[in-house]
Amino acid sequence: MKAIEYTDVAPTLFDNETAKKVAGRVLIGKADGAANFCMRIFEVGAEGNTPRHSHPWEHEIFFHSGEGEVICDSRQYSVKAGSAVLIPASAEHQIRNTGANTLVFVCVVPSIAPEL
Amino acid sequence: MKAIEYTDVAPTLFDNETAKKVAGRVLIGKADGAANFCMRIFEVGAEGNTPRHSHPWEHEIFFHSGEGEVICDSRQYSVKAGSAVLIPASAEHQIRNTGANTLVFVCVVPSIAPEL
Repeated sequence: MKAIEYTDVAPTLFDNETAKKVAGRVLIGKADGAANFCMRIFEVGAEGNTPRHSHPWEHEIFFHSGEGEVICDSRQYSVKAGSAVLIPASAEHQIRNTGANTLVFVCVVPSIAPEL
Repeated sequence: MKAIEYTDVAPTLFDNETAKKVAGRVLIGKADGAANFCMRIFEVGAEGNTPRHSHPWEHEIFFHSGEGEVICDSRQYSVKAGSAVLIPASAEHQIRNTGANTLVFVCVVPSIAPEL
């Protein structure tokens, strides 16, 4: 068993031309013996966003806290704690924080994807 | 994209000799085109628990709310909102609610596992 508090993992920060106020952490991955899929968690600060991009693997996302919106191809969906979203492989997508607090979500990717 | 609120999914209830006060929901699975892994969410009521069992696939778990403990082989770990746990394939495990409120966790399994 591996058991951790997510806040005990050192975050990797992304704040550049495409990602704004994003902190990512690998929670469970290949280094833990998890060969099939990788669980990460992301915090997006107020007015922040993930990059608008696409890649040949899916995301299965669960929103832990905060408020935001997911853009996926031509669709847009408001999310909050308790929302779940599937981003299919190759879809163009972005997650934006639309609230005053940090948006926190778990995002699982298959083993073909980079872990962070 | 699939986007839902988890509470909008009808729960499957487990309350028997081995599972107590457990409600499970598939959030994202094969029916949505997710071929690699399945995201489920479980609610465990106060004094409830999942079955103590083992199976040949792993769990990647994120605790959304509440307080509980995870038993995995000979180890025991206290969990709360923000905890992440890897249950390796074939480990004997159980999750117990140790708090006054509902324990809620996301549990991801590979495609070889039953979805619920």
